[in-house]
This record gives sequence, C-alpha cells and structure tokens, in this order.
Amino acid sequence: MRNILSSLALAASLAAASAPVTALAEDGKDTVAYSIVADLTSQVGQRLGGTAREAYARDWAVKRLTALGLTNPHIEPYTMPGWERGAESAVLLGAAEQKLAITALGNSGATSANGIKAPMVYFASYEALKAAPDSAVKGKIVFIDNAMRAAQDGAGYGPYGTARRSGPSLASSKGAAAVLIRSIGTDHNRDPHTGFTGWDKGVSPIAAAAVSAPDADLIALRASKGVAEQVALTLTPRFTGNVQSGNVVAELPGRDRSLPPILVGCHLDSWDLATGAIDDGAGCAIVTAAALQAVKDGPLLRTIRVLWAGAEERGGFGGEAYAKAHAKEPHALAMESDSGAGRVWRVNIALGAADKVLGDTIAARLSDMGVVRGENKAEGGEDVGFIAAAQKTAVIDMGQDMTHYFDLHHTPDDTLDKIDPADLQQNVETWAAVLKIAGNAATIAPQG
Amino acid sequence: MRNILSSLALAASLAAASAPVTALAEDGKDTVAYSIVADLTSQVGQRLGGTAREAYARDWAVKRLTALGLTNPHIEPYTMPGWERGAESAVLLGAAEQKLAITALGNSGATSANGIKAPMVYFASYEALKAAPDSAVKGKIVFIDNAMRAAQDGAGYGPYGTARRSGPSLASSKGAAAVLIRSIGTDHNRDPHTGFTGWDKGVSPIAAAAVSAPDADLIALRASKGVAEQVALTLTPRFTGNVQSGNVVAELPGRDRSLPPILVGCHLDSWDLATGAIDDGAGCAIVTAAALQAVKDGPLLRTIRVLWAGAEERGGFGGEAYAKAHAKEPHALAMESDSGAGRVWRVNIALGAADKVLGDTIAARLSDMGVVRGENKAEGGEDVGFIAAAQKTAVIDMGQDMTHYFDLHHTPDDTLDKIDPADLQQNVETWAAVLKIAGNAATIAPQG
Repeated sequence: MRNILSSLALAASLAAASAPVTALAEDGKDTVAYSIVADLTSQVGQRLGGTAREAYARDWAVKRLTALGLTNPHIEPYTMPGWERGAESAVLLGAAEQKLAITALGNSGATSANGIKAPMVYFASYEALKAAPDSAVKGKIVFIDNAMRAAQDGAGYGPYGTARRSGPSLASSKGAAAVLIRSIGTDHNRDPHTGFTGWDKGVSPIAAAAVSAPDADLIALRASKGVAEQVALTLTPRFTGNVQSGNVVAELPGRDRSLPPILVGCHLDSWDLATGAIDDGAGCAIVTAAALQAVKDGPLLRTIRVLWAGAEERGGFGGEAYAKAHAKEPHALAMESDSGAGRVWRVNIALGAADKVLGDTIAARLSDMGVVRGENKAEGGEDVGFIAAAQKTAVIDMGQDMTHYFDLHHTPDDTLDKIDPADLQQNVETWAAVLKIAGNAATIAPQG
Repeated sequence: MRNILSSLALAASLAAASAPVTALAEDGKDTVAYSIVADLTSQVGQRLGGTAREAYARDWAVKRLTALGLTNPHIEPYTMPGWERGAESAVLLGAAEQKLAITALGNSGATSANGIKAPMVYFASYEALKAAPDSAVKGKIVFIDNAMRAAQDGAGYGPYGTARRSGPSLASSKGAAAVLIRSIGTDHNRDPHTGFTGWDKGVSPIAAAAVSAPDADLIALRASKGVAEQVALTLTPRFTGNVQSGNVVAELPGRDRSLPPILVGCHLDSWDLATGAIDDGAGCAIVTAAALQAVKDGPLLRTIRVLWAGAEERGGFGGEAYAKAHAKEPHALAMESDSGAGRVWRVNIALGAADKVLGDTIAARLSDMGVVRGENKAEGGEDVGFIAAAQKTAVIDMGQDMTHYFDLHHTPDDTLDKIDPADLQQNVETWAAVLKIAGNAATIAPQG
C-alpha cells in the first residue's frame, strides 16, 4: 500500500481521534475531517445499505453532525430491496486442488447451502463471453478475466467494470450455472473486490463472485496450460425483502435563506467487507469539514446542505430518494466526494453559460492551490447526480488522484490506515475554497 | 505490493511456465527457477507440513527433479505431530460490533466449536504482557501489539516475532482464555500472518491467532479511547496425532564422490493460507536452478546435494530429520535459501580459518556481481542449520533484500505474482557463482 500509517502517523491519528472534534490540534491543524473518518470506521465500522449497521451509522451521523454544530441534522427514510452476504467458498478441484479467495457480488444469487460443482470455462474478457455461443457456457461456471490498469482519474473502472456490472447477467442469460470474475481492481492482494451487479429483466440471478487478482492469475495460468477445471462453489447470500434505509441531511444556513442551497454529498453506507474508510468515510469527512471551514468566519450568502446519502453501494438508493424527496426544491450547485482520500489534482466545472466568470474565479483560486482545470463537464455521482440531472443543476467535480484507489475499492482493505491525513486535508482546503466562492455568488444558473 | 506482475510480466510468466523446464527461453534466458516456482504454486499450491498436500508436493518434487536431470531424487520419510487449521472468526462485540480478520497460529489450541466470549485486555508488547500481574490476564482474551518495521535484512523478525513464538504460551501460563496478536509483519493488508507458536513445558495450548495490521490498528485505537472490548472468538484447529512427512533429496554428482558434498537447502512445505511462492517455492527454485547452472559445463569436483526439506514451518522437522539421518556423513558446506525472492545484496561467509583464501575468492566474485560482504558468521536456517550445527560445517548465507518480505510472509498473499523474475534470476546467478567456486575447492574444512 502507498498511503499507509507509519507508527508516527498512527500516534498522530490516535491523538487526532481523541481530540474534541471541533477543535484544532495543538499545531493549529484542522482535524475535523480525520476525526470523522477515524471515528466512523472505529466506532461504527461496516454499514451495508439497508442493514441494522447502516441504521446504527445514521444515528451516529446525526449525533456527530449535531456535535459539529450543523443545523437540523435529520434522517430522511426510504425503503429499498435488502441483500446480505452469506457463506462463500470456492475450490479448484482435482489433484492440484486449490482454494480461491472469493467474495459475492452485491445482488448475487445463491447456490444451494452445500454448493455446486461444475466445470469452469475461461473468458479473457466480457467481450469474449459475449461472443461465445451459449453451448460453451450452459451449465458451467463462467470465469471472466480483465486487465484493468491504474489511472490517475480512475478511468478504467467504467469499461473494465462492465465485467462485474453486466457479466453475471450475460452469463445467466446464456445458461451458466454461476459466474466468477477477476476482481475489478488494480492491487495484487488476496482480497477480492465486491460491488454491484445487476440482472437484466427476465434474467434469473445466479451465484456471482469476484476472485482476488492472484487467484485470477492462477486461473489464467492453469487455463493457459489447458487444465480442465472443475470448481466447487458455495455462495449463500440472500435477498431480504423490502428494508429500511435513509439519508442523513443537515445544513449550514446562509444569510439569504431564499436562495437555492449548495448541495455537497457523499455516502454514509459502505460495503460489508471493511470499515469503509476511503469509500466513503473520507468523502463524508471531506464535504463536512470543508463546509465547516467555509463558514468559519461567518455564514455564507447561501445555505450549504450536507447530504450523507444511504445505500449508494447497493444501487444509489439514497441519491435517488433524495432527488425524489427534494424534486420541487431548486438547488444552486451540486458537488460530491466519492473517490477516496487521494489529493484533488483536477477540477471539472459545469456551470450555465452565464456563470463563466464564476467558473473562472473558482478555477483561478484552485490553480493557486495546485489544482489543474479539466473539462467543462461534471455530473457528480450516485449521491448528488440524480437531483443534478433532474434539475440540470450546476455541478463541480473535484477530481482526486485515484492511482491507488482501485487497490482498495470494495475490498476488506478499505480501512483507516490507508488514509494519508495530509492528502485528506488537502481535499478539505480545496473544497472549502470552492464553497466560499460559490456560496457567496448571488446568482448561479442551471447548466443548460 | 512492489514486486508484482504487470500484464506483460504475466504473459512472460505464462510463456516461461509453458516452456520445457530445462530449456532456455527464446531470448536465451535461464527460466528453470521461475518454471519451478510457477509450476509448484499452480500445480500443487499450499502444502502444509504433515498433510496430504505436502505428500502430493513431494511426489511432484521427485518428478520435477527427475525431469531436470538430477540424480536419484528420492523421499526420506519421517514422522511428526500433525496440526490442521479449523474454523476461525473473531468479533469485537457491542454496539460498535466489528469483525476482525484473523488466522490461527500454527499449534494453536482450540475454543469450543461455538467459540468463547470474554473481555479483551490490550498489551502494547510482549514485554508489557510479561510485566502484567496474572490477575490482569486471567480469564481474558489477551491482545499483544507490536511495532515491527521493515528492514533490508529482515532484522525485526527475531525480536518482534517473540510475541508470536512465545506470547501465547506466556498468556496461557498467566491464565488467559485465549490470545490474539498483531501479525508479525510489515504490510497494511487485511491478511493476517500465521506462523509457529510454541508451548512451554506444562503449559496448556489455548486458542491463539494473529489479526491483520489494520485490525490491530483498530484494536489499538479503540483501546486508546478506553473502549471495554468484549470479544467472540471461534478457533477450531486440531492436533492430528503422529503423521507422515518427508524430505526430498537429489544430487548432481561430483567428479570425486569421496569428497564430502555441498548441501543446498530450502523447504518444500508452506503454510496453508497461500501457495508458498516466496516461502519457500522461491528458495527451492533458486538452489536447484543454481546447482544446475553450476554444472552446466560439466560436473564439479564435489557433489552438490539438493535438499527440499519438509515441514519447516511446523517446526523444522525436515531439517532435523535430515541431520539425524545423515549424521555420520560429513558435509563440506551448507547453504540455504529461505528468505523470499528478493535479490541477493550481501554474503556472510563462515569458513574454517584455513579457508580464508576460498572465502576471499567467493567474496571477490560476488563483489563483481554487486553483492557486499557482511560478517564472517553464517548458520543457514531450519533446513540445513541442524546438520551444519552438529558438524560445524562451513556455511555461506546469501543475504536477500527482505525489505518487503514481511509484507507477505505467512499470509494469503504469498503468491506467484509477488515474484520478480529478474530478482529471482539474480539469486540463481549469484548462487551458481558460489557453487562453482566452492564445488571445485579440493579442501573445505569445518568451521571450528
């Protein structure tokens, strides 16, 4: 790992986490963001959307936002389809028997409790599976490989992620017994990456899991030597029906409450394999600490609304519920932090044509802070993207360095030690700079 | 990870693994070592000492050594106490419930099948546990922290490893219900490090497991905030009585069979969590490929004997059995490779006083290859150390770069992708250089 705590940094983190949350550290540093993510990961831990752990996290969040002095922290509930992980194991059978490190994808179907045994068929990519005749797939355990590479902007996640998002449905539609994919990630740990998979209309969910990169290497090596693999697979996740989830919303009121607010969002839920430090504890820490820093010298003209969305990982349920609940309420600007804890290196600014000066002012301020300007296109993510799309709200995307993000994303390794406090704080500073400028802008038009 | 396969390197490894094992690759490179470890990890996998998997590995080894052209590859059996892993889980209980990533230490005792629940008591080190009164430990689950740091020569493993080797016995002697330790390692993955623990005479084995570094950070952070932890622990390993194991021994005969041989050793067994690529597939690959390279132009004066020892991880059983079986047979020189696949950077040479010129000749040759000379002290390891100590045999230790070794050591991450083929081959070249010189030395005296 790259961003790891040395023992000195751990000592610092312990000190930071123990400090009063709204205070500055002895050296004058703002420790709000680090304290939020340290406490969320250690006092709450995993908080899968739609589970009791997420509900516990919401209660914790309301308390923390209240303690931080935000106005009216409250929960906005909604319901969603529940899903929970069960037992999971996979073994390459035969004389050269080997256990694989696997984890079920979110929305995976299940095998029987005793598992299944079937031959495995190897595909080098989603496209290769797509091109295969159904007869090559029927009754088999499909393996889908990929070759994702790290990128500063995380660009590979879109195309390579297709194997995870759509591969299982495609395999099921071709009659596969189950599906395994190489983790959508860039690390070489035995820690598989979970994540959302979807089932096309009319397609039955089958057991679908990710294997870690080293296990995928093993499968690829054996496949290249013509080994006829027989696999024993047990996956017993279950759909738990309609369950309760919710968004946590709070505000820092502006001087003019008649003006549409600035919405800053993150997601409170995490996958269930780790403590959700970078995904997305860091994001909630960043948007909240930045909003607080922006109003440190007094309220801005506009209200900043903080959204800690629910159940993003399970399918953007919180962001969608927010958009529905607040559909009739105009928003001036939407921003989201859900790309880890790496430093901000680029800003994409999507404002209405009339707001060119505002965009240039923000870009110039960020340039002073070492952030380059990217394109005039921005859309947020699953948390603020639904409302922004519906209202054509102005959006600013703060592009974080994601070079190492997909080493950790959706794995058991998404833990506090991976966060570099200095990088986290650089996010807070750059976000606060944007919020101060935009929050004092008298007019912000929709994009189009 | 540092030494990882890029997709190009993976392609190269597939090609290497598919090539005839004694052949050179198309570019003229010697691929024997990489082929051995690629095939051992993919065709055999984990091979815990004293299990059927280790027996399978021995049969594979005899076949491979035969195919490589060594003389009389054979198994030298012995018996040893068996131990096998069972179920393992640990949860920090309470409102802020969190699952821990744990794995049983080798020789761990067991909880009941349904596990135990007990308060946890935190100790910052083995020494802190030692200093504590029994009353602070009795009936509790002891947690032992440590602060191991990476070092080029792996120096921290000795002192920090005490927490693992002796901590559980100490905790049991003080009346602990069970013991958890921070993994003895230098990584920040959710992959705990297993390893040998021993029980002092009269001390009853208790359940003993390692937690991953991020989980240990979590425990330390919560302990620093005064959280009173209650832990649910299930560990069901079992001692399996007297079981069969064995060493695999083969030779490259010298021109003068009356001269004592040079013994080059590694261990064939691995822990059961991974495929044992760096520990110690790499070692067996290095010593064997180096021996073959040393005799490429014809036999040396002395025989080189290759020892792929059994059950090293479980307690050096193979090395001890070898020393017993070959006690009356003099050995000229003993060398062992069991420090991973990092490049050789230092050589320690322990020869008899009469052999100063031989030592200087070897050191000068290695200096040409970029290897520095260390001290005149060397002892091998668990595989050749028993015979060397008994006979005061001359020993040369090839010091590998271990900076990243303890990121992977005894974890699920010890897989083929962690081996850099170029570093592995540098071991082969430097070892072969030493073997050529020592193998043609007419006299090699014992050390003392």
